[in-house]
Amino acid sequence: MNDVPTTVAAICRTLTARIAGGEFSADGKLPSERALSEQFSTTRITLQEALGQLEAQGVIYRQMRRGWFISPPRLIYNPLQRSHFHAMAQQQGRDAHTEVIDSGRVTANAALARRLELPEGAKIYRIRRLRYIDGRAVLYCEHYLNPAYFAGILSEDLTQSLTGLYAERYDIRYGRVRFDMLPTLLPQQAAAMLKVTYGSPALFITRVNRDQHDRVIDCDLEYWRYDALHIDVEAR
Amino acid sequence: MNDVPTTVAAICRTLTARIAGGEFSADGKLPSERALSEQFSTTRITLQEALGQLEAQGVIYRQMRRGWFISPPRLIYNPLQRSHFHAMAQQQGRDAHTEVIDSGRVTANAALARRLELPEGAKIYRIRRLRYIDGRAVLYCEHYLNPAYFAGILSEDLTQSLTGLYAERYDIRYGRVRFDMLPTLLPQQAAAMLKVTYGSPALFITRVNRDQHDRVIDCDLEYWRYDALHIDVEAR
Repeated sequence: MNDVPTTVAAICRTLTARIAGGEFSADGKLPSERALSEQFSTTRITLQEALGQLEAQGVIYRQMRRGWFISPPRLIYNPLQRSHFHAMAQQQGRDAHTEVIDSGRVTANAALARRLELPEGAKIYRIRRLRYIDGRAVLYCEHYLNPAYFAGILSEDLTQSLTGLYAERYDIRYGRVRFDMLPTLLPQQAAAMLKVTYGSPALFITRVNRDQHDRVIDCDLEYWRYDALHIDVEAR
Repeated sequence: MNDVPTTVAAICRTLTARIAGGEFSADGKLPSERALSEQFSTTRITLQEALGQLEAQGVIYRQMRRGWFISPPRLIYNPLQRSHFHAMAQQQGRDAHTEVIDSGRVTANAALARRLELPEGAKIYRIRRLRYIDGRAVLYCEHYLNPAYFAGILSEDLTQSLTGLYAERYDIRYGRVRFDMLPTLLPQQAAAMLKVTYGSPALFITRVNRDQHDRVIDCDLEYWRYDALHIDVEAR
């Protein structure tokens, strides 16, 4: 990258070293752009170029109206391991929590009906949730359930793991899962929920889940912050 | 998404229908923003909002200084199937070709040395390539090879499949592969090669490949246009 001015590269190196040294770890917040420009005796433009490069590397991220923060480590997501969100976070020493946005009955559009193997226009359950790692919203998720298998589920506490609830109340365990992962740009609602700019990059994961009897039981649409996860797959 | 003005939604629906109807399929190019604003009797701002939504859905994409184009279908990439780029494209009825940017010996930095299980500072082969689907650059790739296994490879025709070359000339076949996939923003060089804006979203895939004797033979760093692929994994 010979066409990057040295100052940008130097700012990146220095900031990376200061971050690694724990300088900003109290609250994870970097000084303001104005303060940083002064510290580096550089222009705002050059500084922003450097911050943009660190953002591209996933080292820092911007919060709307709040400034720049150090990125927490990405969550490692192995689609071949059958672990749910809370368990996955815990195994990696992270703190997870889930907020329910809403839940109810909706009409399946053509795409959802096909995925759930139901007729178009069928009534299905929708649960919309926001999931946090270490206090940062990282995942906006829409769960679509075939109501035939989950009578009464909407009156349960839906902040808990659905995996656990399925097993305990319905004796339903996950069998085969089909993952479709698309790098995408965040649609408006997901961006608003995750408090990032509309059109920010994201990973959009569609999971179609079958149970131990190979019946399609639900379909999840997951929008992940692009810098929040890391997919890890080993093939033999 | 109740806060989207009807006009934006209406423009999206109409354009999606016109695209599906094959109206722009001769060269895949949409009319200019000015022409589209006139056709929809709307402002440039509203039109751009609609185009942005279609871009987020991966329906259209922008080429620097050339305008808006219909997105070709995403390539389906199943990390569990051991298929190389050209074969994968062909199986999906797509036309693939590869351009070599450069090749040579470089010094392994700490991260590459660790991945290749070599000492830091070891000399390794680097091959940089750009890969096209149906004439569009979709993948910027850096291959790092342990030179111990590939004597003389840099004088071969490197536009061909390395998988094929490994097998024919070196009797080396892929064994286990480790994939790390990170949604990211394109770094400067990859963006310039793919002719997209620096900082555009991308999927960054690191593959560490072992051979039939379980030796680490090479490591690929792949930057994919975010709208060019679709990861498909089924877990049992």
